[in-house]
Amino acid sequence: MMLLATLDGNLHDPNSPLIRVDDLGVLRGEGVFETLLVVSGQVRDLSEHLARLQVSAHLSDMTTPPIAAWHRGIDAVLTAWREPAEMVLRLTATRGSETGAQPTCFVTGTQVPEKIRQQREGISVLTLDRGHSGAAAATLPWLLTGVKSISYAVNMSALRYARAHGADDALFVGTDGHVLEGATAAVVVARGDTLITPPEDGILPSITVRRLFHHAALDGWTTEESPLTRTDLIAADGVWLVSSVRLLAPVTSIDSGKIRISSDHDRLLGLLRQN
Amino acid sequence: MMLLATLDGNLHDPNSPLIRVDDLGVLRGEGVFETLLVVSGQVRDLSEHLARLQVSAHLSDMTTPPIAAWHRGIDAVLTAWREPAEMVLRLTATRGSETGAQPTCFVTGTQVPEKIRQQREGISVLTLDRGHSGAAAATLPWLLTGVKSISYAVNMSALRYARAHGADDALFVGTDGHVLEGATAAVVVARGDTLITPPEDGILPSITVRRLFHHAALDGWTTEESPLTRTDLIAADGVWLVSSVRLLAPVTSIDSGKIRISSDHDRLLGLLRQN
Repeated sequence: MMLLATLDGNLHDPNSPLIRVDDLGVLRGEGVFETLLVVSGQVRDLSEHLARLQVSAHLSDMTTPPIAAWHRGIDAVLTAWREPAEMVLRLTATRGSETGAQPTCFVTGTQVPEKIRQQREGISVLTLDRGHSGAAAATLPWLLTGVKSISYAVNMSALRYARAHGADDALFVGTDGHVLEGATAAVVVARGDTLITPPEDGILPSITVRRLFHHAALDGWTTEESPLTRTDLIAADGVWLVSSVRLLAPVTSIDSGKIRISSDHDRLLGLLRQN
Repeated sequence: MMLLATLDGNLHDPNSPLIRVDDLGVLRGEGVFETLLVVSGQVRDLSEHLARLQVSAHLSDMTTPPIAAWHRGIDAVLTAWREPAEMVLRLTATRGSETGAQPTCFVTGTQVPEKIRQQREGISVLTLDRGHSGAAAATLPWLLTGVKSISYAVNMSALRYARAHGADDALFVGTDGHVLEGATAAVVVARGDTLITPPEDGILPSITVRRLFHHAALDGWTTEESPLTRTDLIAADGVWLVSSVRLLAPVTSIDSGKIRISSDHDRLLGLLRQN
């Protein structure tokens, strides 16, 4: 079940084609997106996601419609939603048709996939070399490492590679040995009463990590951004993949080596779930 | 003017949407493509392009339709074409809808863009760090460096960066200093009576370079694959960007330093144009 709206506030049948073949989103993966979680009709971190979408567009030299237009599309989907309390909202803006100058924008609403909520049982990850270091990539703007781009084939390929090798997910590591991010998520570790996430160099800044760190700090945790190696992860008191829809998935295995779920998992998940 | 056909041999209005919003080509840039040149109704290197499309699909863990199906789409476009003698043919296969298992495939025919044919006047290029070495990337299959993927945003971003900095095109260089490829083309240099192109590690194997080398060898040239640095390019007797549609564009400037067009340019272009 999918709901689909354009930014004029109109709903469309998602089974009917909406995109032309000369759209640069299809031709060359030129576009940006955001994935958000809706809980009981409330969109979480909406202004943060809209701001990141604008940054992605700016870094891609694309124009995107004003925030008010996105709200029309989002409201149309929210109003029509008759399914469970939770929903995945996705905002997409492609560069548009080769001959036009307008982006192609749409909003979809879908159910939260069962599979993504592995908070309890935990997930196994395979570390994969990203081919560059985050620090170096951050100085090369054409690599678009800080952009949530629909040119997402490498991420999906990494995920498939990990699954073909018996893991649930992939974890990118830089050539300098520093952990970067998951294929579709950020990384957080616990060390004592400190939560650590890698610096934002060469990776997508995570809105959900920011949310977690905000609530964790109020709860007495120390939070910091610092470089983490694979060895740091194995030695940590807890390792999680963090993203807007899956929230907090505990990592229970790194490259087939078992690690324990932190005893603070439920507490942190509770912090992340609160408004 | 664009012609559009699906692999059932039917033509469609390219101004009407053909792609659903849940197509993985739009959602995550998952798909592969080929761009071919048609001269007087003859598709150049068709079997080579179809073979490379199959390799790209295989490396992306995608199925693509049999060759015969592509021929139906291609023939529909060729038959309907009423424009100049030359045409750009584009074959695209996306992974298809999230819920289906079938790729979305289509064939388009368009005019050769005026701008791409800069064979005479030459082009200026800006070298850009690719963030990885070709040799390293070739060992990391999830980076898809040998795949002609529609997740092409980095290539287009590099091209825009080059243009914003006064150059016509971008030339990717590996972190090891070895020249890799252009944003949308391969690189060939002349050194005496030898034509040299970089090894295929971490780059897309070029069908047009293969065609050029085949005809050049028959014409008495020595041809080889070996690593090239930026210094090698500056010291060469000629440098070209080579691709199926633009054919052979002489590079006249590298990072604002002028270089001369080889006196063999017309001869090589003639070799590449012949059947």
